[in-house]
Amino acid sequence: MKMRTNGRAKDQLRKVIIHPNYIKHAAGSVLIEIGDTRVICAANVENKVPPFLANSGKGWVTAEYSMLPSATNPRGVREATRGRIGGRTHEIQRLIGRSLRSVVDMEKLGEKTISVDCDVIQADGGTRTASITGAFLALAFSINSLKKSGAVDGKARLIKDHLAATSVGLINGEAWLDLDYSEDSKAEVDLNVVMTGSGKFVEIQGTAEKEPFSLEDMRDFLDIAAKGIRDLIEIQKEFLRNDI
Amino acid sequence: MKMRTNGRAKDQLRKVIIHPNYIKHAAGSVLIEIGDTRVICAANVENKVPPFLANSGKGWVTAEYSMLPSATNPRGVREATRGRIGGRTHEIQRLIGRSLRSVVDMEKLGEKTISVDCDVIQADGGTRTASITGAFLALAFSINSLKKSGAVDGKARLIKDHLAATSVGLINGEAWLDLDYSEDSKAEVDLNVVMTGSGKFVEIQGTAEKEPFSLEDMRDFLDIAAKGIRDLIEIQKEFLRNDI
Amino acid sequence: MKMRTNGRAKDQLRKVIIHPNYIKHAAGSVLIEIGDTRVICAANVENKVPPFLANSGKGWVTAEYSMLPSATNPRGVREATRGRIGGRTHEIQRLIGRSLRSVVDMEKLGEKTISVDCDVIQADGGTRTASITGAFLALAFSINSLKKSGAVDGKARLIKDHLAATSVGLINGEAWLDLDYSEDSKAEVDLNVVMTGSGKFVEIQGTAEKEPFSLEDMRDFLDIAAKGIRDLIEIQKEFLRNDI
Amino acid sequence: MKMRTNGRAKDQLRKVIIHPNYIKHAAGSVLIEIGDTRVICAANVENKVPPFLANSGKGWVTAEYSMLPSATNPRGVREATRGRIGGRTHEIQRLIGRSLRSVVDMEKLGEKTISVDCDVIQADGGTRTASITGAFLALAFSINSLKKSGAVDGKARLIKDHLAATSVGLINGEAWLDLDYSEDSKAEVDLNVVMTGSGKFVEIQGTAEKEPFSLEDMRDFLDIAAKGIRDLIEIQKEFLRNDI
Amino acid sequence: MKMRTNGRAKDQLRKVIIHPNYIKHAAGSVLIEIGDTRVICAANVENKVPPFLANSGKGWVTAEYSMLPSATNPRGVREATRGRIGGRTHEIQRLIGRSLRSVVDMEKLGEKTISVDCDVIQADGGTRTASITGAFLALAFSINSLKKSGAVDGKARLIKDHLAATSVGLINGEAWLDLDYSEDSKAEVDLNVVMTGSGKFVEIQGTAEKEPFSLEDMRDFLDIAAKGIRDLIEIQKEFLRNDI
Amino acid sequence: MKMRTNGRAKDQLRKVIIHPNYIKHAAGSVLIEIGDTRVICAANVENKVPPFLANSGKGWVTAEYSMLPSATNPRGVREATRGRIGGRTHEIQRLIGRSLRSVVDMEKLGEKTISVDCDVIQADGGTRTASITGAFLALAFSINSLKKSGAVDGKARLIKDHLAATSVGLINGEAWLDLDYSEDSKAEVDLNVVMTGSGKFVEIQGTAEKEPFSLEDMRDFLDIAAKGIRDLIEIQKEFLRNDI
Repeated sequence: MKMRTNGRAKDQLRKVIIHPNYIKHAAGSVLIEIGDTRVICAANVENKVPPFLANSGKGWVTAEYSMLPSATNPRGVREATRGRIGGRTHEIQRLIGRSLRSVVDMEKLGEKTISVDCDVIQADGGTRTASITGAFLALAFSINSLKKSGAVDGKARLIKDHLAATSVGLINGEAWLDLDYSEDSKAEVDLNVVMTGSGKFVEIQGTAEKEPFSLEDMRDFLDIAAKGIRDLIEIQKEFLRNDI
Repeated sequence: MKMRTNGRAKDQLRKVIIHPNYIKHAAGSVLIEIGDTRVICAANVENKVPPFLANSGKGWVTAEYSMLPSATNPRGVREATRGRIGGRTHEIQRLIGRSLRSVVDMEKLGEKTISVDCDVIQADGGTRTASITGAFLALAFSINSLKKSGAVDGKARLIKDHLAATSVGLINGEAWLDLDYSEDSKAEVDLNVVMTGSGKFVEIQGTAEKEPFSLEDMRDFLDIAAKGIRDLIEIQKEFLRNDI
Repeated sequence: MKMRTNGRAKDQLRKVIIHPNYIKHAAGSVLIEIGDTRVICAANVENKVPPFLANSGKGWVTAEYSMLPSATNPRGVREATRGRIGGRTHEIQRLIGRSLRSVVDMEKLGEKTISVDCDVIQADGGTRTASITGAFLALAFSINSLKKSGAVDGKARLIKDHLAATSVGLINGEAWLDLDYSEDSKAEVDLNVVMTGSGKFVEIQGTAEKEPFSLEDMRDFLDIAAKGIRDLIEIQKEFLRNDI
Repeated sequence: MKMRTNGRAKDQLRKVIIHPNYIKHAAGSVLIEIGDTRVICAANVENKVPPFLANSGKGWVTAEYSMLPSATNPRGVREATRGRIGGRTHEIQRLIGRSLRSVVDMEKLGEKTISVDCDVIQADGGTRTASITGAFLALAFSINSLKKSGAVDGKARLIKDHLAATSVGLINGEAWLDLDYSEDSKAEVDLNVVMTGSGKFVEIQGTAEKEPFSLEDMRDFLDIAAKGIRDLIEIQKEFLRNDI
Repeated sequence: MKMRTNGRAKDQLRKVIIHPNYIKHAAGSVLIEIGDTRVICAANVENKVPPFLANSGKGWVTAEYSMLPSATNPRGVREATRGRIGGRTHEIQRLIGRSLRSVVDMEKLGEKTISVDCDVIQADGGTRTASITGAFLALAFSINSLKKSGAVDGKARLIKDHLAATSVGLINGEAWLDLDYSEDSKAEVDLNVVMTGSGKFVEIQGTAEKEPFSLEDMRDFLDIAAKGIRDLIEIQKEFLRNDI
Repeated sequence: MKMRTNGRAKDQLRKVIIHPNYIKHAAGSVLIEIGDTRVICAANVENKVPPFLANSGKGWVTAEYSMLPSATNPRGVREATRGRIGGRTHEIQRLIGRSLRSVVDMEKLGEKTISVDCDVIQADGGTRTASITGAFLALAFSINSLKKSGAVDGKARLIKDHLAATSVGLINGEAWLDLDYSEDSKAEVDLNVVMTGSGKFVEIQGTAEKEPFSLEDMRDFLDIAAKGIRDLIEIQKEFLRNDI
């Protein structure tokens, strides 16, 4: 067995730090740090819904994702400068939005839209899964704000389950949890998993650009991912103790 | 057990029709019909590679995906009119490109780029998986052209394995193969799988916007998907008998 | 006299094949083949009109035109990728729209918009004139659908006359009908003509980038074009026998 | 016979005023006024050619066309604000460029590009034909500058013939020359003609959005247009006496 | 002391020529020439306001600024071709709009928007200040039109004060008024000042890209600028004698 | 005299906190907090220069500015989503770039480009001046990195002077330093000043949208601004003690 950066065990997360209520203007927000990956997640609420939900009585949750140019090395080019949002960004923000929607009770939310912005301040692998894990907290905080302000019923269970995401990679034939950038660039297979507190799958995206993988590999990946998700949800619960 | 449209068995593909060499200007092409879904897949070759591969001796395979406006009901808006490629399109064309790259030996291809265009003429569910299945054929035909013209070694094994894709959906608690549009719009879970001829995974994308799914569901999905992929590869082989 | 490709007479059309009702989602559609040029023309109807016709009681007909990247050799770049519709595309789709509008009785159509998409699947010269000839059929089929569904009066004469288009080129001092790509690239003058079943002009566009032409040339062009249009309208009539 | 605005005869141009060398930075320029239509035409020269002409020894001529927002009533929206050049603009600037190229000897010009900007300051009908007529003068002046500076051979005949453009419209069954805006908006047919000093056609664009027209109409249009072109070229010659 | 181009004194404006009512479709317009800098300023009025002023009873004044490509040497690229408005253009048109708004009584104007287009026909330094000086006249003329038509109270004082703008530059340690292009490119400091008829500041923008400047320099700049503004307002008054 | 928010004196800055080296991938960076305004400033270096400096031996400094959507209340729309950078953004990033360039010795820097990204994480007034003050630190840190790595001469004085920026507003006739958002929205005049450590002006931008201001006001503004700049530079010096 190869040694991981910082001597981590193969099923061990990087250090996770949560700074709750990081942005004063947002209804709910966190700065989440997972290793050297840092993402500001901020949820805002509007009293309107997209056209396809008009007069349905149901709400909507959407997400946007972006990286600051200096978050990466070498420096990235701003998408506003390019004049268009790139394919990778689209893919990630659609993933974040779908994942969040899977645990929100849209009827109890009512005709509101919660938009969660995930802005990567510093990138070191796993930005999309850190975004989902942080976005869930920002979303939960924003729903608490709605409850406190009386905009939704304070006793309703708007969030149906916890939600977190992590990645697993195949490196030298071994499944490793929560890859940092230097590990990720060597991985043969990269699997992102979004799961709920009750251990069910919300999204699973596995990619084998280097080498196709077997059903046995797949089972390993899912076990390790499930372990990482449980650890992340434990950390989330410290900030949401009685809240959902 | 619910009946499927057209009385299909739950692990049965829709009717598949392949029209090889459909476009005269392309190096390789097919019109693939899977049920009422019809996609023109056309592969073209250029003697250059993206900047990150310059002087590497390696080739590249990329893909573009689009739908004609009249392919859907209601009619879609052209992305050229919108002035930007949408998130869904980006996601799909990145998926097609990654999938194709997983079975091509880039060193044997040499410094060439094969671009595969997947243009959906008529959509009835499963356009991305039909695109991958058809794109693999167009790619294989284009490599045969390269061999015939002497541009690559006629005996080299540029394609490492067969490749096809299909979808599985969870409908009323049951896993169904290769959903058409009317089935897809009722599915609780939607899983797209890209596999090789040797039964290994290249891509797996599962989404549960309606209801998270369990590990048991997952195993069912993978079994049925694998059966569908085997059937598709049998059909491909009629057109590629001695070719890869 | 020089020989034409395939031994055609100078006033002879290429082979024309019409596949009616090619797209199931459209109100009316054809795949039209003129020699190796193939265009899918699909008409869709919306119950609204552009702002300048609001509450006028009149309808509108518009067209869009595009080429698949693999329709040409070398492969073209998608306009959606460029982020803008090119000048040539604008020019052609405006021409198609104006031509179709000249034969529709907008008051009898009422406040509806018929949009005709012309998507070139394979290009071998004359794509704009093939588009007009095919678009007229798609339009006529869509109007028949409207009549069948009762959305317009089944006996009203919404289409005032037949419509087709063709090109004439001056090659080595001789006027040739319906140029294919190899002929077109040698032409000194290129004239596109849109005419009605009663032999009147709807559009005429002549361009002499290589050498200005005389009034005598012009008369020749118009005679030959008129002959080609009559032949095209004969073919259209097989598909529209009692319909307009 | 109906009376025209200002009592013009049916084959009479509006008043034409030429202000030569209107822009000091351009190699050649005019402000052309045709009635109340005013266009600044300015030609600039670069010592390079588009990629398809590299190392061909040949030059290129291109044109751009735009309207100031306040040139029309109601005020137009800037295309820069819309972020894209509209279809009409594309169509017109392609027409101007093709027309100018038809009278320039590209081999004698050598590997240079002359760009002619046509900016409409005030619009009252006929802006595209006024642009061509003015652009020809700006082009001719810029070639004189090239000759004076020794950049091309002072005795070479770079311009093969004079060039001007005008419009003819069918109003109440009568062909009228050089329509102003109020006339143009009533015309049943609108024909733009670009001709050379020797009476040959360079471009002809006839459009019958209201009512298809006959071959007899066509002949009338061409006669009247030819008369208008001759008058315009007489005016141009006052500014180019010994120059081409 | 260095000599200026054309022997101007250091606090002397270039020659100023005003052509009032230059554009027939605009509610008010001028062609302003300041030396070789020429700008068409045209004001148009709409009976609506931006959303943030809806139902406020107040009006709005806005401005757009652009340069024709041939206004500069070398020729500029059209912003419509680039598909976006550049930073410098944005900065200037925001400056013009703010300046004009400072002297208009928005309540007396009522819910109307006056848009002033400043289109630079020929540039030779000072285009933004010439635009403001000319735009003020176009605005004043358009308000006179509103008064004549009865759209606003003919006796109301909608314009609170005169307005003009000029630049001062530091060249070889000396402050010079109204720099032309050749002077501007040598200036160490460039200060643009917008002032009212009563000698108050509306905008002041000083930039020292080459060398930071002292408080003493600043005082000099302001004295000379104030002198230039007084001269410009004298010229404006010839065209607005009894009007504001 | 009115009381300010938090009881500040009229010439007192908000609390300033500097987090040096905030972003690990950048050559130099800070998170600067001025009151509730927080900006990440990150400098990156490339070994190339814009075309106009090629082979000049000189370097270049440029800046980009952006706000996260959740930095403001209500949430802003991403410029990447709009597909274009807004006028205000352009204006600010041009200001930051010009200001930084005024204190860098470009010949000593050599043919390198330093790009400074200023990303506003939370906005509460004065984001552009906080950006300049923080960007100067990030720039200075990046130059120290260049010295340490030997990429530039370790003893050369690349930074010619300190640089900071602040704002002054006129509120109820009184000049106040460093306005927060609630104060800014009431200000009659808004003046931004960029100054060096030796007390010279680099940029001065004063705007009186509500009411023009007198020369006396101007003198007051400049005194108070100079005091604020001195205080900011004292704070900067704690982080740059022996460094420039």
